[in-house]
Amino acid sequence: MSPSALDELIDALRCLPGVGPKSAQRMAYHLLQRDQRGAGRLARAMGQALEVLRHCERCNNFAETDVCVRCADPQRDATQLCVVEMPADLAMMEQTHAYRGLYYVLMGRLSPLDGIGPRELRLDKLIARAGDGLVREVILATNFTNEGEATAHTIAELLGARGLQVSRLSRGVPVGGELEHTDTGTIAQALVERRTL
Amino acid sequence: MSPSALDELIDALRCLPGVGPKSAQRMAYHLLQRDQRGAGRLARAMGQALEVLRHCERCNNFAETDVCVRCADPQRDATQLCVVEMPADLAMMEQTHAYRGLYYVLMGRLSPLDGIGPRELRLDKLIARAGDGLVREVILATNFTNEGEATAHTIAELLGARGLQVSRLSRGVPVGGELEHTDTGTIAQALVERRTL
Repeated sequence: MSPSALDELIDALRCLPGVGPKSAQRMAYHLLQRDQRGAGRLARAMGQALEVLRHCERCNNFAETDVCVRCADPQRDATQLCVVEMPADLAMMEQTHAYRGLYYVLMGRLSPLDGIGPRELRLDKLIARAGDGLVREVILATNFTNEGEATAHTIAELLGARGLQVSRLSRGVPVGGELEHTDTGTIAQALVERRTL
Repeated sequence: MSPSALDELIDALRCLPGVGPKSAQRMAYHLLQRDQRGAGRLARAMGQALEVLRHCERCNNFAETDVCVRCADPQRDATQLCVVEMPADLAMMEQTHAYRGLYYVLMGRLSPLDGIGPRELRLDKLIARAGDGLVREVILATNFTNEGEATAHTIAELLGARGLQVSRLSRGVPVGGELEHTDTGTIAQALVERRTL
Protein backbone atom coordinates (compact mmCIF):
# COMPACT_ATOMS: atom_id res chain seq x y z
CA MET A 1 0.00 0.00 0.00
CA SER A 2 3.00 2.37 0.11
CA PRO A 3 3.97 4.36 -3.01
CA SER A 4 6.39 2.49 -5.26
CA ALA A 5 8.68 5.51 -5.83
CA LEU A 6 9.17 5.60 -2.05
CA ASP A 7 9.85 1.87 -1.84
CA GLU A 8 12.34 2.14 -4.70
CA LEU A 9 14.15 5.04 -2.99
CA ILE A 10 14.33 3.15 0.33
CA ASP A 11 15.64 0.07 -1.46
CA ALA A 12 18.17 2.09 -3.50
CA LEU A 13 19.52 3.77 -0.35
CA ARG A 14 20.59 0.34 0.90
CA CYS A 15 23.49 0.34 -1.57
CA LEU A 16 25.19 2.77 0.84
CA PRO A 17 27.68 0.99 3.09
CA GLY A 18 26.37 0.39 6.61
CA VAL A 19 22.78 1.28 5.72
CA GLY A 20 20.18 -1.39 6.57
CA PRO A 21 16.40 -1.36 6.00
CA LYS A 22 15.61 0.77 9.08
CA SER A 23 18.17 3.50 8.34
CA ALA A 24 17.24 3.52 4.67
CA GLN A 25 13.64 4.19 5.66
CA ARG A 26 14.69 6.92 8.09
CA MET A 27 16.90 8.52 5.43
CA ALA A 28 14.15 8.47 2.81
CA TYR A 29 11.60 10.07 5.15
CA HIS A 30 14.13 12.68 6.22
CA LEU A 31 15.06 13.60 2.65
CA LEU A 32 11.48 13.78 1.37
CA GLN A 33 10.03 15.48 4.43
CA ARG A 34 12.78 17.78 5.69
CA ASP A 35 15.44 18.22 3.03
CA GLN A 36 14.16 18.01 -0.54
CA ARG A 37 16.82 20.54 -1.58
CA GLY A 38 19.57 18.36 -0.15
CA ALA A 39 18.07 15.31 -1.85
CA GLY A 40 17.97 17.07 -5.21
CA ARG A 41 21.54 18.20 -4.78
CA LEU A 42 22.61 14.66 -3.84
CA ALA A 43 20.88 13.13 -6.87
CA ARG A 44 22.60 15.64 -9.16
CA ALA A 45 26.01 15.29 -7.46
CA MET A 46 25.83 11.52 -7.78
CA GLY A 47 24.89 11.68 -11.47
CA GLN A 48 27.64 14.22 -12.12
CA ALA A 49 30.27 12.21 -10.24
CA LEU A 50 29.38 9.02 -12.12
CA GLU A 51 29.65 10.94 -15.37
CA VAL A 52 32.92 12.85 -14.94
CA LEU A 53 35.01 10.85 -12.46
CA ARG A 54 37.53 8.30 -13.68
CA HIS A 55 40.82 6.94 -12.40
CA CYS A 56 44.04 8.87 -13.04
CA GLU A 57 46.13 6.85 -15.51
CA ARG A 58 49.20 7.29 -13.37
CA CYS A 59 48.19 7.24 -9.70
CA ASN A 60 44.80 5.44 -9.97
CA ASN A 61 43.18 8.07 -7.69
CA PHE A 62 39.83 9.59 -8.67
CA ALA A 63 40.30 12.35 -11.23
CA GLU A 64 38.32 14.38 -13.73
CA THR A 65 41.13 14.29 -16.29
CA ASP A 66 43.16 11.39 -17.73
CA VAL A 67 46.15 12.41 -15.60
CA CYS A 68 45.39 14.13 -12.28
CA VAL A 69 46.72 17.53 -11.22
CA ARG A 70 49.18 16.04 -8.76
CA CYS A 71 50.71 13.56 -11.20
CA ALA A 72 51.04 16.32 -13.79
CA ASP A 73 52.85 18.63 -11.34
CA PRO A 74 56.54 18.96 -12.40
CA GLN A 75 57.41 20.17 -8.87
CA ARG A 76 56.83 16.69 -7.41
CA ASP A 77 59.76 14.26 -7.10
CA ALA A 78 59.13 11.57 -9.75
CA THR A 79 61.79 9.25 -8.27
CA GLN A 80 59.63 8.42 -5.23
CA LEU A 81 56.32 6.58 -5.40
CA CYS A 82 54.21 6.19 -2.24
CA VAL A 83 51.63 3.39 -2.28
CA VAL A 84 48.48 3.95 -0.19
CA GLU A 85 45.23 2.02 0.14
CA MET A 86 42.65 4.80 -0.24
CA PRO A 87 42.38 8.47 -1.26
CA ALA A 88 41.87 9.35 2.42
CA ASP A 89 45.31 7.88 3.19
CA LEU A 90 46.86 10.01 0.45
CA ALA A 91 45.21 13.05 2.02
CA MET A 92 46.78 12.18 5.40
CA MET A 93 50.23 11.78 3.83
CA GLU A 94 49.86 15.18 2.16
CA GLN A 95 48.85 16.78 5.44
CA THR A 96 52.20 15.78 6.94
CA HIS A 97 53.94 18.13 4.45
CA ALA A 98 56.85 15.65 4.74
CA TYR A 99 56.55 14.04 1.32
CA ARG A 100 57.12 15.58 -2.10
CA GLY A 101 57.06 12.47 -4.29
CA LEU A 102 54.22 10.91 -6.27
CA TYR A 103 51.54 8.41 -5.22
CA TYR A 104 49.81 5.25 -6.28
CA VAL A 105 46.36 4.60 -4.79
CA LEU A 106 45.41 0.91 -4.63
CA MET A 107 41.71 1.69 -4.02
CA GLY A 108 41.58 -1.18 -1.59
CA ARG A 109 43.77 -3.86 -0.04
CA LEU A 110 44.33 -7.57 -0.46
CA SER A 111 41.49 -9.32 1.31
CA PRO A 112 41.23 -13.03 0.45
CA LEU A 113 38.08 -13.39 2.57
CA ASP A 114 36.32 -10.82 0.36
CA GLY A 115 37.75 -12.39 -2.78
CA ILE A 116 40.17 -9.50 -3.39
CA GLY A 117 43.51 -10.92 -4.56
CA PRO A 118 46.40 -9.37 -6.54
CA ARG A 119 44.38 -9.63 -9.74
CA GLU A 120 41.25 -7.88 -8.36
CA LEU A 121 43.46 -5.15 -6.86
CA ARG A 122 45.09 -4.72 -10.30
CA LEU A 123 48.62 -4.93 -8.90
CA ASP A 124 49.77 -5.27 -12.54
CA LYS A 125 48.90 -1.58 -12.98
CA LEU A 126 51.09 -0.67 -9.99
CA ILE A 127 53.98 -2.78 -11.34
CA ALA A 128 53.70 -1.06 -14.72
CA ARG A 129 53.57 2.36 -13.05
CA ALA A 130 56.57 1.66 -10.78
CA GLY A 131 58.58 0.41 -13.75
CA ASP A 132 58.42 3.68 -15.70
CA GLY A 133 62.20 4.11 -15.43
CA LEU A 134 61.96 7.26 -13.29
CA VAL A 135 60.83 5.71 -10.00
CA ARG A 136 63.79 4.70 -7.80
CA GLU A 137 62.04 4.03 -4.50
CA VAL A 138 58.58 2.71 -3.71
CA ILE A 139 57.38 3.62 -0.20
CA LEU A 140 54.64 1.33 1.09
CA ALA A 141 52.18 3.26 3.24
CA THR A 142 49.35 0.72 3.47
CA ASN A 143 47.70 0.41 6.88
CA PHE A 144 49.32 -1.51 9.71
CA THR A 145 46.38 -3.89 9.87
CA ASN A 146 46.66 -7.56 8.96
CA GLU A 147 45.32 -6.90 5.49
CA GLY A 148 47.47 -3.80 4.97
CA GLU A 149 50.60 -5.66 6.09
CA ALA A 150 49.84 -8.58 3.78
CA THR A 151 49.29 -6.15 0.92
CA ALA A 152 52.63 -4.44 1.62
CA HIS A 153 54.39 -7.81 1.81
CA THR A 154 53.00 -8.98 -1.53
CA ILE A 155 53.84 -5.70 -3.29
CA ALA A 156 57.36 -5.72 -1.81
CA GLU A 157 57.95 -9.20 -3.25
CA LEU A 158 56.58 -8.30 -6.68
CA LEU A 159 58.55 -5.05 -6.99
CA GLY A 160 61.72 -6.37 -5.31
CA ALA A 161 61.84 -9.14 -7.93
CA ARG A 162 61.98 -6.37 -10.54
CA GLY A 163 64.99 -4.74 -8.88
CA LEU A 164 63.15 -1.74 -7.38
CA GLN A 165 64.03 -0.35 -3.95
CA VAL A 166 61.01 -0.85 -1.67
CA SER A 167 60.55 0.69 1.79
CA ARG A 168 57.77 0.70 4.40
CA LEU A 169 56.66 3.32 6.93
CA SER A 170 58.17 2.48 10.31
CA ARG A 171 56.11 1.00 13.12
CA GLY A 172 56.56 2.09 16.71
CA VAL A 173 55.34 4.21 19.60
CA PRO A 174 53.30 7.21 18.36
CA VAL A 175 54.88 10.66 18.65
CA GLY A 176 53.81 12.06 22.04
CA GLY A 177 52.83 8.56 23.15
CA GLU A 178 53.56 7.45 26.71
CA LEU A 179 54.67 3.84 27.18
CA GLU A 180 52.22 3.45 30.05
CA HIS A 181 49.33 4.09 27.65
CA THR A 182 50.69 2.28 24.60
CA ASP A 183 49.59 -1.28 23.81
CA THR A 184 52.24 -3.92 24.43
CA GLY A 185 52.18 -5.15 20.82
CA THR A 186 53.29 -1.71 19.63
CA ILE A 187 56.00 -1.51 22.29
CA ALA A 188 57.29 -4.98 21.38
CA GLN A 189 57.40 -3.94 17.73
CA ALA A 190 59.18 -0.71 18.60
CA LEU A 191 61.75 -2.77 20.48
CA VAL A 192 62.31 -5.18 17.56
CA GLU A 193 62.62 -2.28 15.10
CA ARG A 194 64.74 -0.10 17.45
CA ARG A 195 67.07 2.33 15.70
CA THR A 196 70.76 2.60 16.39
CA LEU A 197 71.62 6.18 17.39
CA MET B 1 43.83 18.83 -5.22
CA SER B 2 40.90 16.38 -5.18
CA PRO B 3 38.35 16.40 -8.03
CA SER B 4 35.49 18.82 -7.45
CA ALA B 5 32.79 16.35 -8.54
CA LEU B 6 34.03 14.04 -5.78
CA ASP B 7 34.08 16.83 -3.20
CA GLU B 8 30.58 17.86 -4.21
CA LEU B 9 29.32 14.27 -3.89
CA ILE B 10 30.93 13.87 -0.44
CA ASP B 11 29.43 17.17 0.67
CA ALA B 12 25.99 16.32 -0.76
CA LEU B 13 25.95 12.95 1.06
CA ARG B 14 26.09 14.84 4.35
CA CYS B 15 22.43 15.81 3.95
CA LEU B 16 21.64 12.21 4.98
CA PRO B 17 20.74 11.98 8.67
CA GLY B 18 23.56 10.66 10.85
CA VAL B 19 26.19 10.99 8.12
CA GLY B 20 29.27 13.04 9.06
CA PRO B 21 32.34 13.93 6.98
CA LYS B 22 34.09 10.57 7.51
CA SER B 23 31.09 8.40 6.59
CA ALA B 24 30.26 10.64 3.63
CA GLN B 25 33.79 10.07 2.32
CA ARG B 26 33.54 6.33 2.88
CA MET B 27 30.15 6.22 1.14
CA ALA B 28 31.40 8.19 -1.88
CA TYR B 29 34.46 5.94 -2.32
CA HIS B 30 32.31 2.84 -1.96
CA LEU B 31 29.76 4.00 -4.53
CA LEU B 32 32.31 5.14 -7.09
CA GLN B 33 34.71 2.25 -6.62
CA ARG B 34 32.52 -0.73 -5.83
CA ASP B 35 28.91 0.03 -6.73
CA GLN B 36 28.45 2.42 -9.64
CA ARG B 37 25.28 0.56 -10.61
CA GLY B 38 23.82 1.07 -7.13
CA ALA B 39 24.82 4.74 -7.24
CA GLY B 40 23.14 5.25 -10.60
CA ARG B 41 20.02 3.55 -9.34
CA LEU B 42 20.03 5.70 -6.19
CA ALA B 43 20.43 8.94 -8.16
CA ARG B 44 17.51 7.96 -10.41
CA ALA B 45 15.32 6.75 -7.52
CA MET B 46 15.91 10.01 -5.67
CA GLY B 47 15.08 12.13 -8.71
CA GLN B 48 11.97 10.05 -9.38
CA ALA B 49 10.81 10.18 -5.75
CA LEU B 50 11.24 13.96 -5.62
CA GLU B 51 9.25 14.25 -8.82
CA VAL B 52 6.28 11.98 -8.15
CA LEU B 53 5.87 11.86 -4.37
CA ARG B 54 3.53 14.25 -2.63
CA HIS B 55 1.40 14.15 0.51
CA CYS B 56 -2.01 12.53 0.40
CA GLU B 57 -4.62 15.30 0.77
CA ARG B 58 -6.46 13.28 3.37
CA CYS B 59 -3.94 11.32 5.48
CA ASN B 60 -0.79 13.40 4.81
CA ASN B 61 1.22 10.20 4.15
CA PHE B 62 3.50 9.99 1.12
CA ALA B 63 1.52 9.19 -2.02
CA GLU B 64 1.83 9.29 -5.79
CA THR B 65 -1.75 10.45 -6.23
CA ASP B 66 -3.71 13.32 -4.66
CA VAL B 67 -5.57 10.86 -2.44
CA CYS B 68 -3.73 7.66 -1.49
CA VAL B 69 -5.01 4.13 -2.10
CA ARG B 70 -5.87 3.58 1.56
CA CYS B 71 -7.88 6.79 1.96
CA ALA B 72 -9.77 6.01 -1.27
CA ASP B 73 -10.67 2.50 -0.09
CA PRO B 74 -14.43 2.36 0.66
CA GLN B 75 -13.86 -0.79 2.79
CA ARG B 76 -12.16 1.24 5.51
CA ASP B 77 -14.20 2.64 8.40
CA ALA B 78 -14.37 6.41 7.86
CA THR B 79 -15.68 7.04 11.37
CA GLN B 80 -12.32 6.25 12.98
CA LEU B 81 -9.15 8.27 12.44
CA CYS B 82 -5.86 7.04 13.89
CA VAL B 83 -3.13 9.67 14.31
CA VAL B 84 0.47 8.43 14.03
CA GLU B 85 3.81 10.23 13.93
CA MET B 86 5.46 8.58 10.92
CA PRO B 87 4.65 6.25 7.99
CA ALA B 88 6.58 3.49 9.80
CA ASP B 89 4.11 3.76 12.70
CA LEU B 90 1.21 3.42 10.29
CA ALA B 91 2.83 0.27 8.90
CA MET B 92 3.07 -1.18 12.42
CA MET B 93 -0.59 -0.42 13.11
CA GLU B 94 -1.56 -2.13 9.85
CA GLN B 95 0.49 -5.19 10.74
CA THR B 96 -1.65 -5.69 13.84
CA HIS B 97 -4.66 -6.37 11.54
CA ALA B 98 -6.68 -4.96 14.44
CA TYR B 99 -7.67 -1.64 12.88
CA ARG B 100 -9.91 -0.97 9.89
CA GLY B 101 -10.30 2.80 10.16
CA LEU B 102 -8.39 5.58 8.42
CA TYR B 103 -5.16 7.34 9.37
CA TYR B 104 -3.56 10.74 9.69
CA VAL B 105 0.24 10.86 9.55
CA LEU B 106 1.75 13.87 11.34
CA MET B 107 5.16 13.39 9.68
CA GLY B 108 6.83 14.31 12.94
CA ARG B 109 6.01 15.26 16.51
CA LEU B 110 5.93 18.41 18.59
CA SER B 111 9.49 19.18 19.56
CA PRO B 112 9.95 22.70 20.98
CA LEU B 113 13.73 22.21 21.25
CA ASP B 114 13.91 21.66 17.49
CA GLY B 115 11.53 24.55 16.85
CA ILE B 116 8.65 22.25 15.85
CA GLY B 117 5.43 23.62 17.34
CA PRO B 118 1.74 23.12 16.37
CA ARG B 119 2.20 25.45 13.41
CA GLU B 120 5.27 23.66 11.98
CA LEU B 121 3.52 20.30 12.44
CA ARG B 122 0.50 21.72 10.54
CA LEU B 123 -1.98 20.60 13.20
CA ASP B 124 -4.53 22.83 11.40
CA LYS B 125 -4.56 20.23 8.59
CA LEU B 126 -5.34 17.48 11.10
CA ILE B 127 -8.12 19.55 12.65
CA ALA B 128 -9.66 20.17 9.22
CA ARG B 129 -9.35 16.45 8.37
CA ALA B 130 -10.91 15.31 11.66
CA GLY B 131 -13.77 17.77 11.22
CA ASP B 132 -15.03 16.29 7.95
CA GLY B 133 -18.32 15.28 9.58
CA LEU B 134 -17.70 11.54 9.15
CA VAL B 135 -15.02 11.04 11.80
CA ARG B 136 -16.50 10.15 15.17
CA GLU B 137 -13.41 9.04 17.07
CA VAL B 138 -9.79 10.11 16.83
CA ILE B 139 -7.35 7.50 18.18
CA LEU B 140 -3.99 8.97 19.16
CA ALA B 141 -1.19 6.51 18.44
CA THR B 142 1.82 8.78 18.80
CA ASN B 143 4.82 7.28 20.58
CA PHE B 144 4.94 6.96 24.36
CA THR B 145 8.00 9.19 24.53
CA ASN B 146 7.95 12.63 26.13
CA GLU B 147 7.52 14.28 22.74
CA GLY B 148 4.89 11.81 21.57
CA GLU B 149 2.93 12.23 24.81
CA ALA B 150 3.07 16.02 24.55
CA THR B 151 1.91 15.80 20.94
CA ALA B 152 -1.03 13.57 21.94
CA HIS B 153 -1.93 15.92 24.79
CA THR B 154 -1.97 18.99 22.53
CA ILE B 155 -4.01 17.26 19.82
CA ALA B 156 -6.48 15.94 22.41
CA GLU B 157 -7.06 19.48 23.70
CA LEU B 158 -7.49 20.95 20.21
CA LEU B 159 -9.92 18.25 19.02
CA GLY B 160 -11.75 17.93 22.33
CA ALA B 161 -12.55 21.65 22.17
CA ARG B 162 -14.26 20.91 18.84
CA GLY B 163 -16.47 18.24 20.39
CA LEU B 164 -14.70 15.20 18.91
CA GLN B 165 -14.22 11.97 20.85
CA VAL B 166 -10.48 11.46 21.36
CA SER B 167 -8.81 8.28 22.66
CA ARG B 168 -5.24 7.14 23.20
CA LEU B 169 -3.57 3.71 22.93
CA SER B 170 -3.33 2.23 26.43
CA ARG B 171 -0.06 2.05 28.30
CA GLY B 172 0.89 -0.98 30.35
CA VAL B 173 2.81 -4.21 30.61
CA PRO B 174 3.60 -5.62 27.12
CA VAL B 175 1.75 -8.74 26.04
CA GLY B 176 3.88 -11.73 27.13
CA GLY B 177 5.83 -9.43 29.47
CA GLU B 178 6.87 -10.72 32.89
CA LEU B 179 6.68 -8.25 35.78
CA GLU B 180 10.15 -9.31 36.91
CA HIS B 181 11.58 -8.05 33.61
CA THR B 182 9.39 -4.98 33.12
CA ASP B 183 10.64 -1.54 34.11
CA THR B 184 9.02 -0.10 37.23
CA GLY B 185 7.74 3.00 35.40
CA THR B 186 5.67 0.80 33.10
CA ILE B 187 4.36 -1.26 36.02
CA ALA B 188 3.43 1.90 37.95
CA GLN B 189 1.58 3.19 34.87
CA ALA B 190 -0.19 -0.15 34.43
CA LEU B 191 -1.33 0.10 38.05
CA VAL B 192 -2.67 3.65 37.65
CA GLU B 193 -4.48 2.71 34.43
CA ARG B 194 -5.73 -0.66 35.74
CA ARG B 195 -8.93 -1.91 34.15
CA THR B 196 -11.98 -2.97 36.11
CA LEU B 197 -12.93 -6.52 35.11
